[in-house]
Amino acid sequence: MRNVRLTIEYDGSNYFGWQVQENLPTIQGKLKEAIRTITGEDVKITGASRTDAGVHALGQVANFLTGSNMDCSRMRRALNALLPHDIKVTNVEDVEMDFDSRRNARGKLYLYRIFNRDTPSPFEYRRSWFIRGEVDVESMRRASRYLIGTHDFSAFSKSDRKRKTTPIRTIKSIDIERKGNVITFSFLGESFLRHMVRVIVATLVEVGMGRLNPEDVKVILSSKDRRFAPFLAKPYGLYLVKVFYEKLP
Amino acid sequence: MRNVRLTIEYDGSNYFGWQVQENLPTIQGKLKEAIRTITGEDVKITGASRTDAGVHALGQVANFLTGSNMDCSRMRRALNALLPHDIKVTNVEDVEMDFDSRRNARGKLYLYRIFNRDTPSPFEYRRSWFIRGEVDVESMRRASRYLIGTHDFSAFSKSDRKRKTTPIRTIKSIDIERKGNVITFSFLGESFLRHMVRVIVATLVEVGMGRLNPEDVKVILSSKDRRFAPFLAKPYGLYLVKVFYEKLP
Repeated sequence: MRNVRLTIEYDGSNYFGWQVQENLPTIQGKLKEAIRTITGEDVKITGASRTDAGVHALGQVANFLTGSNMDCSRMRRALNALLPHDIKVTNVEDVEMDFDSRRNARGKLYLYRIFNRDTPSPFEYRRSWFIRGEVDVESMRRASRYLIGTHDFSAFSKSDRKRKTTPIRTIKSIDIERKGNVITFSFLGESFLRHMVRVIVATLVEVGMGRLNPEDVKVILSSKDRRFAPFLAKPYGLYLVKVFYEKLP
Repeated sequence: MRNVRLTIEYDGSNYFGWQVQENLPTIQGKLKEAIRTITGEDVKITGASRTDAGVHALGQVANFLTGSNMDCSRMRRALNALLPHDIKVTNVEDVEMDFDSRRNARGKLYLYRIFNRDTPSPFEYRRSWFIRGEVDVESMRRASRYLIGTHDFSAFSKSDRKRKTTPIRTIKSIDIERKGNVITFSFLGESFLRHMVRVIVATLVEVGMGRLNPEDVKVILSSKDRRFAPFLAKPYGLYLVKVFYEKLP
């Protein structure tokens, strides 16, 4: 047996997210099918992040155990020949038998794109969140500073009464840049709660549009109550860029 | 009557080009439909460039005569509400009655994108020409210099026995840049023959991949015979960026 690690890019627009769901197209499902065709095996694929429906990836990481002895670069080419145009494997490598792409992840970099113009762009369709009207980057930056560090992010995540893990998370950095009509948010953290990046972005946009003050973000954070941040940015703007397996500095 | 000028962006992937064709989706056809819904009129739309099937635009210009008195910004919003996500009007303005977007054009800027990596990208699907293997930018630049200026470009255009106009064209500049995996060609010229940019790009790629020498481009140009340049780059990489109505410097 071998443990094979994949790096995957996908445009999530046409999928019901990462995780296999019966009779629905998912990224994990398409990968499983392609691996079955190549190896004849029904493998269990572990993904570093269970991205939601519509969310994209530039560097999702996954791994699976297989008895196949096909070499890595042939496997990459065979998988890409079988996969649809919106899912591509950019790297295949052998890893230690105990590597687990999900449990071993020590950090993640997410990117969120907003397209901010009067008219939507044909080229940004399902690749960003379209927002008309002025969005002030400086006030979003000020607001974002309250979120850096280790906090209870209950207010900024999908309410989950059955949550088994702690709602305490560490955000290492949030960078916000405007280039032409595109505003890009980068989030670097050890791990994120479900919907966390999208709730934070949507809340910062409320600040950027002047409907909340930067200081309100501090109040929302300390409320630990999702009802104070009833916002959710479109999935299409979110990209999982990189998964880190060494501890973040 | 008024003469209305439109600036249009489109992702050409799903269309059989600019020009109306019966029972086939075209950009001009979609615009005509949207204008008919708004004004009740069956207008004649003139486009600056008859882009081919699959070709994109960031700044196509078109104009039409109408009896409607709807103001320009309302017309833009109404058109965009009716148009599909892959065609958007970024500007509507009133122009002199004798303005003709095609006949008055004095220059055009086209951009051609190549995605050059081992694995295709989900985000570049139908947005660039995917090429695997090394492409040398410097030798393409050297080859491109033979094409700058005023020449008979018969060798670099769709053979057309019925051509009514001269095959002599003026290219002001060709810039070639690599940024990461993307190679971008910019062509600035007064006007271009049918397929001209795509034949030139494909010929330059032959040079970049070492299958032709830069000097061969000079020989092909002076042959004035398309059979010496039997190459054609994919339409998906081509973007009409801007149409100029003042004389190029």
